[in-house]
Amino acid sequence: MEESVEDTAIGVDIGGTKVLAGAVTADGTVLETVRLPTPHRSTSPQVVENTIVAAVRELEFLTGSPACAVGIGAAGFVDARGNVAFSPHLAWRDEPLQAALEGRLRTPVTVDNDANTTAWAELRFGAARSYRDVVCLTLGTGIGGALVLNGEIYRGGHGMAGEFGHMQVVPDGRACECGNTGCWEQYSSGNTLVRSARQAVTERSPEAERLRWLVEDDPDRVTGPLVTQAARDGDLAALEAFGEIGDWLGVGLAGLAAAFDPELLVVGGGVADAGSLLLDPAQRALGRTLTGRGFRPEPRIVPASLGTTAGFVGAAALARQRLGE
Amino acid sequence: MEESVEDTAIGVDIGGTKVLAGAVTADGTVLETVRLPTPHRSTSPQVVENTIVAAVRELEFLTGSPACAVGIGAAGFVDARGNVAFSPHLAWRDEPLQAALEGRLRTPVTVDNDANTTAWAELRFGAARSYRDVVCLTLGTGIGGALVLNGEIYRGGHGMAGEFGHMQVVPDGRACECGNTGCWEQYSSGNTLVRSARQAVTERSPEAERLRWLVEDDPDRVTGPLVTQAARDGDLAALEAFGEIGDWLGVGLAGLAAAFDPELLVVGGGVADAGSLLLDPAQRALGRTLTGRGFRPEPRIVPASLGTTAGFVGAAALARQRLGE
Repeated sequence: MEESVEDTAIGVDIGGTKVLAGAVTADGTVLETVRLPTPHRSTSPQVVENTIVAAVRELEFLTGSPACAVGIGAAGFVDARGNVAFSPHLAWRDEPLQAALEGRLRTPVTVDNDANTTAWAELRFGAARSYRDVVCLTLGTGIGGALVLNGEIYRGGHGMAGEFGHMQVVPDGRACECGNTGCWEQYSSGNTLVRSARQAVTERSPEAERLRWLVEDDPDRVTGPLVTQAARDGDLAALEAFGEIGDWLGVGLAGLAAAFDPELLVVGGGVADAGSLLLDPAQRALGRTLTGRGFRPEPRIVPASLGTTAGFVGAAALARQRLGE
Repeated sequence: MEESVEDTAIGVDIGGTKVLAGAVTADGTVLETVRLPTPHRSTSPQVVENTIVAAVRELEFLTGSPACAVGIGAAGFVDARGNVAFSPHLAWRDEPLQAALEGRLRTPVTVDNDANTTAWAELRFGAARSYRDVVCLTLGTGIGGALVLNGEIYRGGHGMAGEFGHMQVVPDGRACECGNTGCWEQYSSGNTLVRSARQAVTERSPEAERLRWLVEDDPDRVTGPLVTQAARDGDLAALEAFGEIGDWLGVGLAGLAAAFDPELLVVGGGVADAGSLLLDPAQRALGRTLTGRGFRPEPRIVPASLGTTAGFVGAAALARQRLGE
């Protein structure tokens, strides 16, 4: 009993819209979870810190013991010292998050990109367990990405690798929050899905009959889970919205497969809960556009098996791993 | 004298249009070189083998000694056993090149992607000598690519990583020999440069005055080196052709920088001999489109310092390295 209590690490996953945190044991078991809204991007970095501290204290209260380590998965560019250099969806610019949190929590803190923490969870405990060369995507507000190369997270020359969502896929395309145009995540993400479905509701499209019923004809009530539900019920507009982001997912993954030649492609994040609604059109598009197809293995696209818990489970596992270094 | 003779490895670089081979010492010194045209893609694989064997025998004759090892850099997808799975520019499909050449040459043979051999030369002896995380491109007939991660060539899950040239950059874009449309190499390569300049000559553009004089108004006489010469002489059409492929080079490299976060970007191959004509517009486009710019280091784009010899120098160095394994 004493041992398992001492053994608890806390992982915190800060996404574009929500903060998910959990107390996690060494074998990846989740003991308790907490969910809070992400402070709006116009607020100060300290408000986000307050949210993290509140989540950690709540989990320590729920489990009845202090965490041996705290891992943060943050949506942004994180350097090797846990500074968040830039976050498209948050207010952070050169924010020394790790140092600030260690000062407040008085516990070892590890900060990494949320896509890296998700990938680490899937590699240790999930869909990528027996693989060494894997591209992991997190589809949510945008596209987070992570590279597992030779069995390790590859972070790049300055700790900022894996920002696949901001690769340009359409010249002079849709505007992105990062300041560029035509970024991949403007064509394949949870935001894109909702925007597309919302438009069908706004236009009172007859193809969106089921979705319109679900949201009572109010475009503002369209959410990712409702689009998924409508698609499962056969709503044509919702199916088309999934087909579109799935197709773009596959085209982009074909590009990443050309670049990395991975064994496996893992797609996590909220949108991936839709499973085959998203991944079937993606696999078809990949098969259609992979260069050298027919003369090389076609990597499979699989859903992250830990679902939306992967971000904080991996953050906790990375924080625990750093304790041993 | 005996020692340096025994110490000679032969590298052979098989590009889309020419075969460049050289006898290379352990410290990267090139003793002799041979240059032959690449057999047309409609010919059989054996014709390409004959060309390689002829180049090796010629170099052994010129240096007066047999090679201790032979390294091949081939334009194509090469697996770990030296089989060429697929080559967009050659007739090869699942061609066991390494085994066939070892049978004929009776010397240890190493086969790798030509972009990998180029990158290895630049890392060992050239522009990337003090770096560990580098993206290397070879611009010629198409775009070859290689990844140096943590100081080693990263070949991917099946030995096929680095095919950046076949990442889609324009939806429903220009047709590519690989069977896809909109591939990056259709917008930024030697072929693209020549095609663009040739069109200006065909249209008798007044902006192509110098180029038209150089080729005597014959579009078929336009070559990469002549476009470079015309651009250096101030020909507006030639400068625009470089500006266009340079811009696409920078946009694509910004995408690769988002994915890999490299310290350095090395551009080799015939077109890169044009130096700043190509790399200045590329660096500008990279600076304009790199995601998170201003909050992260902007990697420099530098020319491969070994020029067009890098492909065979790296092939020889890799072959020599395998001897010691």
